[in-house]
Amino acid sequence: MQNKQWILNSFPVGEIQDNDLILRDSELNAINDGEVLIKNIYLSLDPANRGWMSGRASYVDAMKIGDIMRGGTIGIIKESKNEKYKEGQIVQYQGGWQEYCINEGKGLRLVPQNSGLDLPSFLSVMGMPGITAYFGLLDVLKPMEGETLVVSGAAGAVGSIVSQIAKIKGCNVIGIAGTEEKCNWLLRDLKVDGAINYKTENLKDRLKDLCPNGVDMYFDNVGGEITEAVINRFNIGGRMSICGQISGYNSETVQPGPRNWINILVKRLKVQGFIVFDYQSRAKEAFIDMSKWIAEGKLHHKNHIVDGLENAVSSLKMLFSGENKGKMIVRIAND
Amino acid sequence: MQNKQWILNSFPVGEIQDNDLILRDSELNAINDGEVLIKNIYLSLDPANRGWMSGRASYVDAMKIGDIMRGGTIGIIKESKNEKYKEGQIVQYQGGWQEYCINEGKGLRLVPQNSGLDLPSFLSVMGMPGITAYFGLLDVLKPMEGETLVVSGAAGAVGSIVSQIAKIKGCNVIGIAGTEEKCNWLLRDLKVDGAINYKTENLKDRLKDLCPNGVDMYFDNVGGEITEAVINRFNIGGRMSICGQISGYNSETVQPGPRNWINILVKRLKVQGFIVFDYQSRAKEAFIDMSKWIAEGKLHHKNHIVDGLENAVSSLKMLFSGENKGKMIVRIAND
Repeated sequence: MQNKQWILNSFPVGEIQDNDLILRDSELNAINDGEVLIKNIYLSLDPANRGWMSGRASYVDAMKIGDIMRGGTIGIIKESKNEKYKEGQIVQYQGGWQEYCINEGKGLRLVPQNSGLDLPSFLSVMGMPGITAYFGLLDVLKPMEGETLVVSGAAGAVGSIVSQIAKIKGCNVIGIAGTEEKCNWLLRDLKVDGAINYKTENLKDRLKDLCPNGVDMYFDNVGGEITEAVINRFNIGGRMSICGQISGYNSETVQPGPRNWINILVKRLKVQGFIVFDYQSRAKEAFIDMSKWIAEGKLHHKNHIVDGLENAVSSLKMLFSGENKGKMIVRIAND
Repeated sequence: MQNKQWILNSFPVGEIQDNDLILRDSELNAINDGEVLIKNIYLSLDPANRGWMSGRASYVDAMKIGDIMRGGTIGIIKESKNEKYKEGQIVQYQGGWQEYCINEGKGLRLVPQNSGLDLPSFLSVMGMPGITAYFGLLDVLKPMEGETLVVSGAAGAVGSIVSQIAKIKGCNVIGIAGTEEKCNWLLRDLKVDGAINYKTENLKDRLKDLCPNGVDMYFDNVGGEITEAVINRFNIGGRMSICGQISGYNSETVQPGPRNWINILVKRLKVQGFIVFDYQSRAKEAFIDMSKWIAEGKLHHKNHIVDGLENAVSSLKMLFSGENKGKMIVRIAND
């Protein structure tokens, strides 16, 4: 049987170029005892993927040239020689950018049947972005009712969930995004208190207008100048959780810390980075709350689904240009 | 009666120049009801003083040209028209760079009699640097036995106390300082586990040698490249308290954040700034423990005392060249 796979051909320098990843046909082996054959249905594309395409280890091992590109997937078990899994089960796992994956029964999470949610939800609100948002807000920032939260990348897969959970918790939420459409979605559907289009508006002035009592918390997905502007509006004792730094991921040099770093001292700020993998063991806590909020109509999400594994690279690039409209997902096969 | 006062004549640009502060004779007024006349005996000089000499408000109000230079002092009450204070009492307060100060009875802390400690101790280990060290370590970093702590500016007024308290708490302590003499003092008298002379040694290599299991905590007094080197050695979940950023205080542009900022995310670091003023109400906790440790011979300190108010500027500059040997204090009058 044939398998299509995206292979890392060179480490990108700056923006991803067409030959950094190449689509290859390969022969699929028969599975051995203990293994399962999974047909991938959906592939999650996330800003962090760009960071993984590096020869340097970070919170994940370094990738090597020739590796199958990494990515979170949802797939269906087609054949099992592992007693824990059987044909027809749907699993969420790190299946990579490929049509089929042979797995030793490791890191597979069964997707619940009859949840009322569609499969892509388990790569967005009920998947990694949802867990990221839930713990990055509730465990790292620990919001209190009445506090003002600024979210960068607020219309993204993580930011949109953060914004809504913060509203549920009684915060004043200001979202920053890069298009009018995203800002309108934040205001109308997600009911945030204010939205700023950083590409067309004066961020400094708008933050002043929308946060007259200063900023208590900042959930950062982007870094760079947006972060500097928010730091300048922080109240004494403000808290900042660093979830992503997308503004620097395509940079050839590592993006430096904010130029107004001294404010961490002057304003006694708490700055904390976190990685969703550290919360995997507590994921259930998030799913219980999130399912409830979804059922109550308090938590909305939007998936941007592109058909065809061959479109994975161009879809990933959309996250960096900001063209995506919701959580970026590739449909590899029909579910 | 005449009073000598140092007056802010211009905001320093870069290093303090001779005419930024001028020594002036002025006539001392008679005191009014509610006021006390205090003769200053000792003046504390601290790196933060440089930051105060600015037209911009920070955690203290902005200074104005013509203001008496600010500084912590110990003085003796010479005359009192305030029922709470009487002649002969010794007080620690913000008395400024002057021989005499008229005070409305605000912000005065009585220096205990018969404590067995000399007066300068109440500007160092039992004063602001001591409280800074105590809470910046115990409240912000919360050290646990066996953890590795790196301290920059380790031979300074704050850093030397931090290093010793961390040893009392069972940590592995590595101090960074700028002269052999300071490093020897750290090793021989303060009994730290390792000392690095950042001016003559390769910081990166030495940190690797001395922290084979990585760095769990970093108490930062300096910022800049030293901080970047320590961040690179941080373990996952490391904690960093920002107490001072002396490497940037003389800079005309604000010192930017570390170039390896992305590690805050990758290594899930917690970074927190703090200001000693926030702990004033809890100072007693520190003094109780510190007195005990001093009495037990576990806590040493060294004061560098220069005679004469006229030498205040040159003494302050020594903090930035690193020439000081211990907590910098000017003796304004004999005690």
